[in-house]
Amino acid sequence: MTARQPTVEDVARRAGVSRQTVSNVLNTPEIVRGRTRERVEAAIAELGYAPSMAARRLRTKRSATIGIHLDPYAGGISGIVLDRFIHALTDRATPRGLRILVYAAADAQEEIQRIRQLREGGEIDRVVLTGTFEGDPRAEWLAEHDVPFVAFGRPWGEAGTGAQMGDPLRPWVDVDGAAGTRAATLFAREHGERVVFLGWPAGSGTGDDRERGWREVVGVDGLRWTSLDSVAEARSVAERGLAERDVDAIVCASDTLALGAHLAASHAGRPELAVVGFDNTPVAEALEISSVEQRPERVAEAVLDLLVADPTTDEGPWHRLIEPELVVRARDEG
Amino acid sequence: MTARQPTVEDVARRAGVSRQTVSNVLNTPEIVRGRTRERVEAAIAELGYAPSMAARRLRTKRSATIGIHLDPYAGGISGIVLDRFIHALTDRATPRGLRILVYAAADAQEEIQRIRQLREGGEIDRVVLTGTFEGDPRAEWLAEHDVPFVAFGRPWGEAGTGAQMGDPLRPWVDVDGAAGTRAATLFAREHGERVVFLGWPAGSGTGDDRERGWREVVGVDGLRWTSLDSVAEARSVAERGLAERDVDAIVCASDTLALGAHLAASHAGRPELAVVGFDNTPVAEALEISSVEQRPERVAEAVLDLLVADPTTDEGPWHRLIEPELVVRARDEG
Repeated sequence: MTARQPTVEDVARRAGVSRQTVSNVLNTPEIVRGRTRERVEAAIAELGYAPSMAARRLRTKRSATIGIHLDPYAGGISGIVLDRFIHALTDRATPRGLRILVYAAADAQEEIQRIRQLREGGEIDRVVLTGTFEGDPRAEWLAEHDVPFVAFGRPWGEAGTGAQMGDPLRPWVDVDGAAGTRAATLFAREHGERVVFLGWPAGSGTGDDRERGWREVVGVDGLRWTSLDSVAEARSVAERGLAERDVDAIVCASDTLALGAHLAASHAGRPELAVVGFDNTPVAEALEISSVEQRPERVAEAVLDLLVADPTTDEGPWHRLIEPELVVRARDEG
Repeated sequence: MTARQPTVEDVARRAGVSRQTVSNVLNTPEIVRGRTRERVEAAIAELGYAPSMAARRLRTKRSATIGIHLDPYAGGISGIVLDRFIHALTDRATPRGLRILVYAAADAQEEIQRIRQLREGGEIDRVVLTGTFEGDPRAEWLAEHDVPFVAFGRPWGEAGTGAQMGDPLRPWVDVDGAAGTRAATLFAREHGERVVFLGWPAGSGTGDDRERGWREVVGVDGLRWTSLDSVAEARSVAERGLAERDVDAIVCASDTLALGAHLAASHAGRPELAVVGFDNTPVAEALEISSVEQRPERVAEAVLDLLVADPTTDEGPWHRLIEPELVVRARDEG
């Protein structure tokens, strides 16, 4: 043994496991197989390894409680995505011994106040952020005040992600929207070359990301229609579009837009026209519209992984991009 | 003054307010107007009224934490109702200084275990039950173990409600399904006498309740169709029904059934046929189908009222039946 303090790498090498496994034994021993855990514990004892305070605190804590903001119910077809995420987070947190405390807040400043109160009261010790946006003051506040958190969404904007990829103080999990529309467009092209994108007005990070996936497949000449996220408007935009052009398929930025496009196609006597939505909501399921599924369960799993990871022993990466899945449905127009 | 201990009634009489207001001053002073509160506090001082231990505990407690089970996401159109309730509960609990902790559990027994652990850990001190059913062991366990709780739904079946109307150990809040379908049927009758009910197979408390409201309006001769809660099955049942009979309107036990009926009517060349759903989901909104709205916000408010009420000072009633609201939409079939 050398004179320096043994590190987690030394323990990993001695036990013949990865750093991540050592970290798991320290932080979430219940997810490590018994024999592996014993080997790591033996290596820790042999080397006289002293885990950092943070790791020790995590290990000796009987449970951690995660605070998460629950937006007021806003209606709409895609609101379900965040609810599914909360369900999935709760499902997966409970067996890990983690608690979920939900709170309301009208805006970012009120949410910061809420988090401060809940933390001072010892009621939460980490946070999951949702509805993140560029320059999000919540993320900055949490990082400054040493509150462990993970964001669902990229709070630092597209531009910032490259540089802060590995920042353990600002971890995030997001869904790869472009990958979703890329898959949707490749599927739609089986119906013909002329695949239109029906998207929101430019400027929303999420919408632009989804448009990008389609554009990568169809190239610069691809035709794009624009509508607010409203069934009625999407329907009238698509009706006008279908009257003017020959179209083989429509890839949409949301299931709301897809429902409008589907109604327009049916009204135009083309109920068989391929329409692909995004978010795989109950509406898409009920009307047998193909749609891109965000897989909130995978997002939740990744959020929890990052939330229990320990910056002093874990290497990262401190973000995760979840690949969505295209759910193909064959519509029976009876 | 008499020799006996003054009661909450004495305080109410002296202050010229209701017992409920006295109870509010004791338990949730922040919701009582300043001047009223002062009057009640003066009466308490004059009479030397000593609130019960339970009331005192409630009053001095800085915050209470409510545990509530979050079911795994099951998909489907009406799942949104429970999510809206959780949103509303969180929105309304936060300004009252109450916390909401959500947990997962696979069944009633596991939920009891979960509640026991969370209570022993001091992490929750009261519970909101959802998905209740007749003979629900959770309600019995909570009542036996003195855990304050309120059920969303009637866990004691239709038969039991009469006798246990006033039981402060078993409080519940529910939506008056029959009132909802009664309103839906009265509206549907504006389109003609022949209002069919499209419902689930008999035997579900919720479904039978909803059928009853329709039956009260149409009488014994009313025509009833039956379908599982599936868009495809509802559609084929309604298609067959519409082919066989003259029908003026269809009142449905759910928005899923209403969507099936709506598709059947459109397919039969009668897109204008009046169809009324239940739950006022985003699907009904998007397709402009009229629907009965459960008003989860009112349910949440009533649940919280009962949850902070004090059986030693409050008289009840210990259940609340929320009247739903018919949302009428005019469909534009373009």
